[in-house]
Amino acid sequence: MKRSHRVGAICQILTESPQKIFGYKYFCDMFSAAKSSISEDIAAAKEAVAATGYGYIETISGTYGGVKYVPDISSDKAVCIQENLCSMLKEENRILGGGFLYTSDIMYNPEIVKGMAQIFAKKFSSSGADYVATIETKGIPVAFMTAHLLNLPVVVIRRETKISEGATVSINYFPGSSERLQKMSISKRAAEPGSKVLIIDDFMRGGGSIKGLVEIFSEVDIEVVGIGVAIANIEPQKKKVSDYFPIVYLGEVNETEKTVEAISNFQIF
Amino acid sequence: MKRSHRVGAICQILTESPQKIFGYKYFCDMFSAAKSSISEDIAAAKEAVAATGYGYIETISGTYGGVKYVPDISSDKAVCIQENLCSMLKEENRILGGGFLYTSDIMYNPEIVKGMAQIFAKKFSSSGADYVATIETKGIPVAFMTAHLLNLPVVVIRRETKISEGATVSINYFPGSSERLQKMSISKRAAEPGSKVLIIDDFMRGGGSIKGLVEIFSEVDIEVVGIGVAIANIEPQKKKVSDYFPIVYLGEVNETEKTVEAISNFQIF
Repeated sequence: MKRSHRVGAICQILTESPQKIFGYKYFCDMFSAAKSSISEDIAAAKEAVAATGYGYIETISGTYGGVKYVPDISSDKAVCIQENLCSMLKEENRILGGGFLYTSDIMYNPEIVKGMAQIFAKKFSSSGADYVATIETKGIPVAFMTAHLLNLPVVVIRRETKISEGATVSINYFPGSSERLQKMSISKRAAEPGSKVLIIDDFMRGGGSIKGLVEIFSEVDIEVVGIGVAIANIEPQKKKVSDYFPIVYLGEVNETEKTVEAISNFQIF
Repeated sequence: MKRSHRVGAICQILTESPQKIFGYKYFCDMFSAAKSSISEDIAAAKEAVAATGYGYIETISGTYGGVKYVPDISSDKAVCIQENLCSMLKEENRILGGGFLYTSDIMYNPEIVKGMAQIFAKKFSSSGADYVATIETKGIPVAFMTAHLLNLPVVVIRRETKISEGATVSINYFPGSSERLQKMSISKRAAEPGSKVLIIDDFMRGGGSIKGLVEIFSEVDIEVVGIGVAIANIEPQKKKVSDYFPIVYLGEVNETEKTVEAISNFQIF
């Protein structure tokens, strides 16, 4: 195999499995090549990946050393993703009654979700999280894609207890000021006590659901090390959780004028 | 930039966005290179990707032509994924009361989910689906990852009607022979009438939920062009849907002996 073929293959293999460490031996065996040759290939792969603006290849030294692909995103690309999200939110045919917006098509679109997940993965790359957590349903794709980029398992908090979840711990919480009490439950097998989670969700208004997540994790001795939401409503300004990271803010939804206010989070990285 | 760098970058960019067509011009502009040079790079990228066993690069001719990455999986890799899934299912500590198995850790693990999605994406690559559909909750990750590999949007059928879904169509269905009537609903905005969907779910016992999905799609004039399930229970042998594709079969779960029977689907491709 030629150098350019090996470099291409290395770039593809690393990109397919973000954050997974591949020893040099893996590539030596795959290409029946000497370590010195693979070293040069990897140096070239590093330069190749650095040029695309999607991430970088990192070398890990030591016995379990090797190389891994770290998804990253340039500020330019992040701004494009934010602006695209804002302009989608402003489409007037999303406006439902009661000031609600239809966003399922956004949250279930793999390309858009991947963009948001790239922003979360960069933002929380040093969070030390062992899991990415969300509450069903609409935040699952973005939480899952973030977890894929960080190479972490997902924990999904259910609203109802299911027999297939085994023993569970449940709490009651107030999702918002005027709504009724709701329930959420976590399987006792879902995450190890003493571990750390990163919460990712699609939308936050008052922060009631996210506060519920923080509470339920506290019940099972799990620490929340970060909170990311795709869309944060500007109102109410006082949220039930203080430290959260939104990709965009949603302002007034005017049903009469058919206008939606959406603004990028300018303090993104 | 050297050829090997360009080839590596092309492999990475195509892999990041499966099934998305990139014109030659995109790469000419990116690398400030002539079309003849990019043609040679792409030829090298094709050979590089062909060597990894993960997919291939396809050339599309015509005005909107270019190249795209088609995820594929070798039979060897598919068999490994199936065997790994079977051995996980056989772990005795998964056994819950009533013959249920705990599988959330499997269905929420990005690496395992990606493997299953690669099998589904290959199996249904020619299905002509416009959407990938699932019913909440545990099948969402594998449906979403399959959709990512096929570059299609996802439709998630909800069990309860939500205000943020807008106008919905609902049906009542029997999930199983002994269970009570349940409800599922689809947002009228979720998919275009006249379009085609591929159903992907995590588990099927009698096929009641899947039959419900087929019915609800029929109500909104959408055709089901394929059904894939990660795990199909062997019993009952007579399912409510006839044409489905499982990755593995689940046999007897013996609570006393602490044994689980799990078998690969040998007719995979």
